[in-house]
Order: sequence, then structure tokens, then C-alpha cells
Amino acid sequence: MPLMRAAVMRKGQLIVDDVPDPVPGPGQALVRTLACGICGSDLHFLKYGQRMVDLSKETTGVAMLDLGRDVVMGHEFSAEVLELGPDAAGPKPGTVVTSMPVMLNGFSMEDIRAVGYSNEYPGGYSERMLLSAPMLLEVPNGLDPRLAALTEPMAVGAHAVVKSGITPGETAVVLGCGPVGLAVVAALSLAGIEPIVAADFSPARRQLATTMGAHEVVDPREEPAIEAWRRVDGVRNVVLFEAVGVPGMIQAAMKDAPRWARILVVGVCMEDDSIVPMYGINKELEIRFALGYMPNEFADTLNAIAEGKVDVAPLITSEVDLDGVPGAFDALADPEEQCKILVRP
Amino acid sequence: MPLMRAAVMRKGQLIVDDVPDPVPGPGQALVRTLACGICGSDLHFLKYGQRMVDLSKETTGVAMLDLGRDVVMGHEFSAEVLELGPDAAGPKPGTVVTSMPVMLNGFSMEDIRAVGYSNEYPGGYSERMLLSAPMLLEVPNGLDPRLAALTEPMAVGAHAVVKSGITPGETAVVLGCGPVGLAVVAALSLAGIEPIVAADFSPARRQLATTMGAHEVVDPREEPAIEAWRRVDGVRNVVLFEAVGVPGMIQAAMKDAPRWARILVVGVCMEDDSIVPMYGINKELEIRFALGYMPNEFADTLNAIAEGKVDVAPLITSEVDLDGVPGAFDALADPEEQCKILVRP
Repeated sequence: MPLMRAAVMRKGQLIVDDVPDPVPGPGQALVRTLACGICGSDLHFLKYGQRMVDLSKETTGVAMLDLGRDVVMGHEFSAEVLELGPDAAGPKPGTVVTSMPVMLNGFSMEDIRAVGYSNEYPGGYSERMLLSAPMLLEVPNGLDPRLAALTEPMAVGAHAVVKSGITPGETAVVLGCGPVGLAVVAALSLAGIEPIVAADFSPARRQLATTMGAHEVVDPREEPAIEAWRRVDGVRNVVLFEAVGVPGMIQAAMKDAPRWARILVVGVCMEDDSIVPMYGINKELEIRFALGYMPNEFADTLNAIAEGKVDVAPLITSEVDLDGVPGAFDALADPEEQCKILVRP
Repeated sequence: MPLMRAAVMRKGQLIVDDVPDPVPGPGQALVRTLACGICGSDLHFLKYGQRMVDLSKETTGVAMLDLGRDVVMGHEFSAEVLELGPDAAGPKPGTVVTSMPVMLNGFSMEDIRAVGYSNEYPGGYSERMLLSAPMLLEVPNGLDPRLAALTEPMAVGAHAVVKSGITPGETAVVLGCGPVGLAVVAALSLAGIEPIVAADFSPARRQLATTMGAHEVVDPREEPAIEAWRRVDGVRNVVLFEAVGVPGMIQAAMKDAPRWARILVVGVCMEDDSIVPMYGINKELEIRFALGYMPNEFADTLNAIAEGKVDVAPLITSEVDLDGVPGAFDALADPEEQCKILVRP
């Protein structure tokens, strides 16, 4: 059986090993991974995989995968088309593409699989992947494949901004400037929202928030984000984006929010959480949860990057090869040093 | 000092006693209470008054009142105008009116007081009240003042329905058929929503829900409300109205809600509560909190009752005089016997 190299999650550990080389089936494309970003969700999954599998089963009714078997993660990628499988229509071999990390073998829930969170479909921490041929998007304008790999995380921010319903004339507070919070800042900036107030403990992350378009950045230990917002605007409608994803943040946003504010939760909190409903009631708050993106948002994000409307280069803080993946997972613990690490198999 | 009879909250007890007869100031009207509904909030307030005062101060920054002093509750009323104070323009003496229970002495937060939750302004559990003359609404069509007194609780339902953004073609599930849940059912019915599925443990309350316009009613111990909704529709967008107001109900609604559903929280839960954010995230739910109503919603509700579009008579399960108020508070503990008790001073 032909093999390829991959960073594999096996029995809760991340190791680099040989795994079966994938063979494209009907409607599938075999691609060579060019670049793949390491996502915070992958760090969570390595640590709390079983809880994530259980929560997914519990909340959606669908079992993602079996953690007793190998999983090759990596869902923020660009790639080169190597070969189209039987009956597969798509960009010809040699084309640089990206794609939503979704394998679409049909149109029922059982036919849709998450590339990078699957036992069957290895993600971008490997030399080669299978993708759904109809889902492939050609990377336009000769865009650097390393930048194209950031389409996925940036699309998460674009979707959150659309879901929030924010419109020019309204203002935004972004709590947390990890890759998700920074993607939200970039999408808000692209949507013409002003001012954007962003908060993070890390000076490096605050600097990145400014680079991505935040008008005011604060260390919440020194000044609460909502106070900074009151200082720079304090009058117009405000949407609070919760992009931290730890217990207590939703309630913190509910406490901070002015009357009639919207809270958009894009941080992924996997623990149980506690709220005081009276804050929601007395201020008539609205809380919207966002996850992922729609295909048009993904395509629009790729185009925005390719046309230079969003510069994602500053987010990439280092690059590693497959052997460097386990070390990169450890390095991402320090927000001062790292933001987005790209794997280049 | 002239006195009047009232049911007074004094040191956490409800007693019937003489209190100072109010004298109308500038912009105020002195009215004679004709009918006043007993609200679940008043039962809460008698039991957990200090917590409600603290939560209000904490969440809105405004101190409602001092529980060390007398409070005459009652905020769902109709009344007859007796006398207009200095510089007060309003309906002439003898006119039957209702009003939002708000004393508007000016336009800053400190100038706005809640009639019925105030040390200065006695509510409808008394012979006479002061109201804001510009807030008075003449009861039209010769509507029975006992029915006009239900404008306030029905307006809470109308506001919740507006806040939910529900439109014809969407469907509704109402969790809890106390007066608030029933007001929601009535407002949904008036808005042409179909089907409306309502759930309550009490057969009498379920019967009232049907009377108010619910198309399907269930005992949630026998069939979860969302299963009943799946049985009668299960396809179109659904808005879940949480009208119970005890801990765990928001999470129960989040667990029941299908993907992309909206949850409108109109039940007033005064305890801390626990949620699992992953339900919100994986299903991209939206949670909106509603409180009270807007002046136009209040006026529209009065007109809908007066024009016979909403029949509130079935909600009134008994009437008492002022001496009967303490006993009526006890009687409301049994949802099988009582729904709305009217006080007729």
C-alpha cells in the first residue's frame, strides 16, 4: 500500500508517521498540500478530543469520528490539484486551489464529512488530501498559497460579522484577539464598521488587531473593553463579539453590554457556562451564536485576500514542516510569540 | 392627613391598612382604581423583594425603592379619572382609562418611576393612584374596565412577539402557559402565526392556551413540546418562547431548538442559570430577551382588546376586594384553580 507522511493524532498523541496514501474516488480530487494553518480547535481537539466528539454527537446527533483510529487534522489549507477521480469535474492538475474542509459525497448528513476531523479524510497536516471536486476554488490573481491557506479562518470572522447583522453606523467591541478575534476585526474593517474596539491581554495580539483594522485596542486588565468603547464612542449601537471561548465570557459580555446591545458569540467554549438571565432581561440583550461560514462567504473571503482588500500576511508568525507540527502545537501556547503557524508538508 | 385603604407590602408582609391618600402634583392625574390584576412578579417581589431590588440596581444601575418603607404594588390596572393636577392635560374626570405603570416626572432616568414598585407612587392594590396625565389612554368602545386591566399583561406578550421577529410562515413553541405564556399565545394568534404549540403541566392552563389560540397543547411530561411541534409541523422556521422563568429553561430550550432557531426569553428567571454554549454554537441559535413593552404596543393591545380581536375574559378566574389580596396571593400558587385574579378596591 502506498504511504505518505503525516502528523497523526493517535491515542491522544500527535506523532509524525506514515499513513495510507489516499486514492480519489468518484467526484473527488487528489491534491498536494501546499500550506495548512494550525487552528486553535486542533489544539483543543488534541487535548479534549473525546469531549468534543461527545458534544458534537449530543448537540448535532452526528458522530464525527472514532478516536480509537488515526485522525490527520488540518482544515485551513491551500493545495495543488494532482489528479481528478472518476466522474470528477474540477480544476485541472497543477491548479492551486483552496476549499471548505468538507467532503461532499452526497446530500444527506451521513454523506458530508469534515476533512481534518475524520477517520477517512486526512487533513492538511499530511502530504496529500482528498477533496470534493465541486468544492474546489481556484486561487486567483497568483495569490501566494500560504496566504490562500488563511481563507478558512478569515471566513469564520466574515461569517460572524454577517451573522451579527452589524451595519455601518453601528460600532463593535471585539473581546479576544486570537486568530478568530483578529478575523472578526478584519471583517468588521472590510465592512466599514467604525470604531472597532479590540481587547486582549497580549501586546503582540493587540498590535495585530491594530494592523487588521481596530481603531482602539486595550488590555482589559487596565481598562475594560466597554469603557474604552464609551471613551471613543459610547453613543451608537454596539455589537460585542465574544472571541475568547472560555467559561464566564458570555456573562462578562452580558454584564458589559449596554441596553439593547447584540452579543455575537464566535469563541468556542466547550465547558458548561453560567449566566445571570436578569442581565439579558433588564437590558433586552440579544445573543447570537456563529459557527463556520457559508460557501459564498468562503469564496468572498478568498477573493478579498487575493484582491489585497485584507492583508493576512502579518498573521503568519512562523512556518514548519510536518516534523515540526508537534512542536508548533506546543509553541502556540504563547500568544506573545505566535499567532498563525503554517505547516508546509 | 387624608387616608385610603390599600394592600401594603410592609417588612416583607402583605397587610391591608390605611395609607396616605395621594395628591396630584404638576402633570399628574388622581384616579380611582377600578380593577387591578395580580401579576406573578408581585408574588416574586413579596418573596424575593430584596433580591429583585439588588438585581435591578446591579443590572440597570438604578435603585427601584427602599424595602424598609411601604410599597403598594399593582401595575395592571384600569381606573377612573378623579382630578387633574396643576398643569396636567388629560382625559376629564369620569373618564375610564388605563396606562403604562410609569410615572413620568421628566425625561431623565431619575424622573421615571414604576407605579406599583415604588415608595412614592402606590399601585392598583389601593383605592386611588397617581398617574402621569400624558400617559393616560382612554378605554375605548365602552370596554369593561375589568378587561381593560388586562392590557398590561397582554402587552408583555405582544412585545415579546414583536421582539422575536416572528413573521407569518414561521411557527412557534410556547414553553409555559402562565399569564405571560398565554399573552404570548394570544399575540401570536393575532399575528397570524400557525401552528402555535404550547406546553404546560396544568390541564387548566392548557385549556386556556387553546382558548387563546394555540393549535396544539401538550403536557411536557408526556410529550416534549418540540416533539409535538415536529409532529404538527417540524419543517418551517420555529421560534421558541421561554415563558416559565426558572433556572434550566433557557438551556432546555437550547437543547430542544432545531438548527438556526430563535429563542425568545420572556420568562423572568431571577436566579443564576447554567447553559452549555456548544448547543448554541453547533446550532447557531439566537437568544433574545424581552422585557415590558413599548408605548405603541401597549396602546395597540388596548385597542385589540376593545375591538374584540383578543378575548381576555377567560383569563380572569376570580375577583377580590382589597381585604382579599393577601388570600389571593396564596391562591395563585395553584395554577389549576387560578390564572388572573382581579382586585376591585
